[in-house]
Amino acid sequence: MIISMRQHATKEEIDHVCERIRDFGYRVHSIDGEERVVIGVVGTGDVTACLESLEATPGVERAVRISAPYKFVSREFKKEHSAIRVNGLEVGGAEFIVMAGPCSVESEKQIMETAEAVAEAGARMLRGGAFKPRTSPYDFQGLELEGLKLLRKAKEATGLGIITEIMSDRDVDLVAEYTDCMQVGARNMQNFALLKSLGSCGRPVLLKRGLSSTIKELLMSAEYVVAHGNSEVILCERGIRTFETATRNTCDIAAVPVLNELTHLPVVLDPSHATGKRSLVPALARAGVAIGADGLIVEVHPCPEKAVSDGAQSLTPAGFRQMMRDMAPYIRLWKEARAQSSTLAVAAL
Amino acid sequence: MIISMRQHATKEEIDHVCERIRDFGYRVHSIDGEERVVIGVVGTGDVTACLESLEATPGVERAVRISAPYKFVSREFKKEHSAIRVNGLEVGGAEFIVMAGPCSVESEKQIMETAEAVAEAGARMLRGGAFKPRTSPYDFQGLELEGLKLLRKAKEATGLGIITEIMSDRDVDLVAEYTDCMQVGARNMQNFALLKSLGSCGRPVLLKRGLSSTIKELLMSAEYVVAHGNSEVILCERGIRTFETATRNTCDIAAVPVLNELTHLPVVLDPSHATGKRSLVPALARAGVAIGADGLIVEVHPCPEKAVSDGAQSLTPAGFRQMMRDMAPYIRLWKEARAQSSTLAVAAL
Amino acid sequence: MIISMRQHATKEEIDHVCERIRDFGYRVHSIDGEERVVIGVVGTGDVTACLESLEATPGVERAVRISAPYKFVSREFKKEHSAIRVNGLEVGGAEFIVMAGPCSVESEKQIMETAEAVAEAGARMLRGGAFKPRTSPYDFQGLELEGLKLLRKAKEATGLGIITEIMSDRDVDLVAEYTDCMQVGARNMQNFALLKSLGSCGRPVLLKRGLSSTIKELLMSAEYVVAHGNSEVILCERGIRTFETATRNTCDIAAVPVLNELTHLPVVLDPSHATGKRSLVPALARAGVAIGADGLIVEVHPCPEKAVSDGAQSLTPAGFRQMMRDMAPYIRLWKEARAQSSTLAVAAL
Amino acid sequence: MIISMRQHATKEEIDHVCERIRDFGYRVHSIDGEERVVIGVVGTGDVTACLESLEATPGVERAVRISAPYKFVSREFKKEHSAIRVNGLEVGGAEFIVMAGPCSVESEKQIMETAEAVAEAGARMLRGGAFKPRTSPYDFQGLELEGLKLLRKAKEATGLGIITEIMSDRDVDLVAEYTDCMQVGARNMQNFALLKSLGSCGRPVLLKRGLSSTIKELLMSAEYVVAHGNSEVILCERGIRTFETATRNTCDIAAVPVLNELTHLPVVLDPSHATGKRSLVPALARAGVAIGADGLIVEVHPCPEKAVSDGAQSLTPAGFRQMMRDMAPYIRLWKEARAQSSTLAVAAL
Repeated sequence: MIISMRQHATKEEIDHVCERIRDFGYRVHSIDGEERVVIGVVGTGDVTACLESLEATPGVERAVRISAPYKFVSREFKKEHSAIRVNGLEVGGAEFIVMAGPCSVESEKQIMETAEAVAEAGARMLRGGAFKPRTSPYDFQGLELEGLKLLRKAKEATGLGIITEIMSDRDVDLVAEYTDCMQVGARNMQNFALLKSLGSCGRPVLLKRGLSSTIKELLMSAEYVVAHGNSEVILCERGIRTFETATRNTCDIAAVPVLNELTHLPVVLDPSHATGKRSLVPALARAGVAIGADGLIVEVHPCPEKAVSDGAQSLTPAGFRQMMRDMAPYIRLWKEARAQSSTLAVAAL
Repeated sequence: MIISMRQHATKEEIDHVCERIRDFGYRVHSIDGEERVVIGVVGTGDVTACLESLEATPGVERAVRISAPYKFVSREFKKEHSAIRVNGLEVGGAEFIVMAGPCSVESEKQIMETAEAVAEAGARMLRGGAFKPRTSPYDFQGLELEGLKLLRKAKEATGLGIITEIMSDRDVDLVAEYTDCMQVGARNMQNFALLKSLGSCGRPVLLKRGLSSTIKELLMSAEYVVAHGNSEVILCERGIRTFETATRNTCDIAAVPVLNELTHLPVVLDPSHATGKRSLVPALARAGVAIGADGLIVEVHPCPEKAVSDGAQSLTPAGFRQMMRDMAPYIRLWKEARAQSSTLAVAAL
Repeated sequence: MIISMRQHATKEEIDHVCERIRDFGYRVHSIDGEERVVIGVVGTGDVTACLESLEATPGVERAVRISAPYKFVSREFKKEHSAIRVNGLEVGGAEFIVMAGPCSVESEKQIMETAEAVAEAGARMLRGGAFKPRTSPYDFQGLELEGLKLLRKAKEATGLGIITEIMSDRDVDLVAEYTDCMQVGARNMQNFALLKSLGSCGRPVLLKRGLSSTIKELLMSAEYVVAHGNSEVILCERGIRTFETATRNTCDIAAVPVLNELTHLPVVLDPSHATGKRSLVPALARAGVAIGADGLIVEVHPCPEKAVSDGAQSLTPAGFRQMMRDMAPYIRLWKEARAQSSTLAVAAL
Repeated sequence: MIISMRQHATKEEIDHVCERIRDFGYRVHSIDGEERVVIGVVGTGDVTACLESLEATPGVERAVRISAPYKFVSREFKKEHSAIRVNGLEVGGAEFIVMAGPCSVESEKQIMETAEAVAEAGARMLRGGAFKPRTSPYDFQGLELEGLKLLRKAKEATGLGIITEIMSDRDVDLVAEYTDCMQVGARNMQNFALLKSLGSCGRPVLLKRGLSSTIKELLMSAEYVVAHGNSEVILCERGIRTFETATRNTCDIAAVPVLNELTHLPVVLDPSHATGKRSLVPALARAGVAIGADGLIVEVHPCPEKAVSDGAQSLTPAGFRQMMRDMAPYIRLWKEARAQSSTLAVAAL
């Protein structure tokens, strides 16, 4: 950490800052610039507490963090890309994993039809919400336990692994019983009570980036899960909120290689939420393969106009099939690149 | 709701859309424009489900909502500004309410000293976190129950009402036992499980706007609490996330009069989180009074540089006293305006 | 256009609005909803003036535009993808066009070396700034005329077409004399004086999206150039400004298929400015090919650390060569898709 | 400037960085941290070129600027608030200056009526556009020279100083002949050719913050004008672009005290563009007074619904009169505070 003092900071202020740094157990290394004094803080461990204290100390202009505040999830901690096992598959391994299914589980017919269609087209996991986070209290809130049971039934019929959203730390045990992977939605990315409880859920976690969360905050949230005991975390870029309204969100696709530099955790892309519009999904999905994501999570519904949620961004089974076909040569290139290096990510460094 | 069809939509597509609208129980009113057909959807009640369905229907270019998706919190539902009773005070009434205190409750000495200092300077409520949402799992997470007990002790000593943050639906009963007002933090504004559980907590709720939440989403979240049984909601503007980094957040101060037009709920301003910097707080607080907020929530710490969190944005007791003194003539103008109309808000319409 | 009246608008207000609409030459189609009156405005031509007037008229809550405000650049105006001829090439045609070169022209040695290196590696056009928009008045501002002459020299030596930035309507004739394509930088996307003057410059224009410009505003700026006489416009996505700071800008890659739906103009991607970081450029470039952009514009410098500008995001000649090699199979897939449909874009519809 | 090396940077890389720093004429001060080497760059003068070079140098993770890149406009350069003389008034002095008038000059009748009305209500300057930056090429583009002549006529009749927008460096002499203050619009804040030409225009310049410009970039653009010979610059906060759509822009009102800390230049607020909605203007204007802006620039039109531009955000003359009346006690408080310290700004430090 570097402390930049105000231009006319007094000697007393500078001495006091140095004393505070030593109180926190760090060493001081001070530089007298032509315009101001800059103080290096040398030592190991998380400097957040010291940084926050110094920001509030008289005479200090700015405190700049040099080392990243996350540890277990960083590439520096673990060089090799992590492959997370989910229902016998590896996300982050040698296969490109497509997860597909409806936004919400609505009925047995709907989920069974979708599961069969996406499995046949090449998906490896089934997504579907039983607990739904909805902006309006008057919208459909999910089938809850009934939905979880239908997902299990679809798994039994197709062999697809199940991924479904968990919305409250109260429901962790219940959801963990039925699903192969616990999804944390964008609006809960900083629901710290939930993140802590997922540390001991015994299931891998797919953590979606918050609408206005930075990449660093996404990594800090992943660090929460890991620090509480669960190192099986998959990250998901699903678009961020910007001024642009032509798409539902703005897909920050460069987050994929940025994450590959900063963390060993696998990264999947959600082209459905990123765009909010069915016609844009296949093009963005291709881009996701090309940029080196570890997989995709895509919304598919047997009859999008009758979907209780997210119909506009859901592919039909036929549309999904077509997309998978068009993506096949890109996935072949992906596999070749993956086979050559332990990961695309490491290759990029 | 208005449905705009694609330019070359077929007659079949148009007929199908009209049929879908009637299925949802609405009437159809179609306009043949020179370039495209536009269809008006006439009826009462929440149109969200119909809107989402039509957005996913072939031939539809865009569905535009005309009526607001919230109901109980709207000015149309209730013309008069709501005054929410908290510990004998009214937020939204004839007094301008200042809530002040530390980010986190750290120790008995710290909270008692702060409570006495802010009470003496004119604050009417004491803020302080017992459960803390922290970006890093390695940061101080709050004293929890011990913190709640210290807040109660501070209340007994000073008579100040207590406001503290609730982070999980698991803790609602516990926190409600100790506090006068339940604060929902920005990161939990769309934690719908939490919002639902606050519907029956028996305490007023202060709902902070999410970092990237629109004003409409803030109102929808308030609607959650109201729809689940608790109409005592106070809104809080605390800055949104933008590209600007000179301040911690960007204070969307115009949200105050916008909310006054759209809702009857009271609105307070948090100049501490909005700026993240102590020296900017007094100027923004004055602006908050002048623009017609119903109160302020401000961070104060006896020794900001020793605060475990948010020191850089915390005023010292002396700084807070000075701010309250400088604000006094503005608060007098506020009271005169408030006395003349039932609210500034209605005056603005 | 649709006019939504306030809930309690009076009959006089409604009549007055209808009268205003007829004054502008449009027909009125009114819908009495349960809660409010909605008025359809029927007719042809640009409704902007009428829309702005009605937004300011008493009783009106909101005016919603249904038809796009651009005309010549829209897909509705011209179905086929446009191929823009530049120095014998076609941008938007059957070839994927890579433009490469340094941020600034710095010296004869630098530009000649770069031109030869990028030509050999497969670039088809040479980029390089002679007039430089720099945030600081103390930074290098470009070699101006001398830079233009060096670009011409590099063209003579390599046959590469030249693209360089134009910063003022004063310099249009001068720059047009030396370059094959006029680049409008992001900061000038809404410099309307410049856009108008490019209508008669006799050269194709590459228009970069502004840092905070919507896709619609980009199209309106393109419409300026076309409406003033020059239909040869290439669009460029180069990242927008958001809250994320891990990259210099946030690449809105979905803008490529969105633009392909809305306009017939070709679209190129600038992965250098979009990321600001050399190590991220190749991955994003691959994604640009996969998503169906018509080309790339990439920064390359013989010795990035000695570049007077943008060194951090410039590839070395060796890095560029490697990127082109890795991109080759993706470009093959791009060509196959392009050959099958007149454009990828149309295929997506 | 501080250079943070990558964690495993080699000795050669570190030595090379030190050598580069010395090449630029600075001294090196290196700190061996536990995890990485951090290098302080000591010296005077603008470090931008060195910073950009080092960012592109192998082994470097990040270069952090410590000193601000602007000089003449900084508070460190000049402690006292600057008062800029415009037509006999001082912006930044002892009076709170209100500038008012229509978006566009439309006709003699319109501008004369408006000028008289705003003068009578207490405005001290008349705003009005003769050259209009419009998003669409089909919208009204201004009366140009004819508009400038009408503004002069209004000045002769009322004594109000004139402020009008300049859109191209071509028109500087023409506009300077007719106006008292040259306005640079938000879309031209980084039109560097224009900024340079204003260095010798002989008139004060009001520089509006760009839609997505940071406060630092605003100061850098002011520095352009000053560095090219004209130190008479007034800054203007007019709202920035964010995800919120309830208002036309998001007023970053805290930019006023932030600027007061960073620069000696006066700052005015534009509540009309900041909100885009007439009903919100008076409340935001009051907040602008309370937070310590040096003045306001407000849109007023005799008949907003017939305005050719910005009608929705224009006050009527009666609305403006009412606003000025309601603002009077706030302006009295402003004057008292201003009289006590040389500036509110300095008081805040």
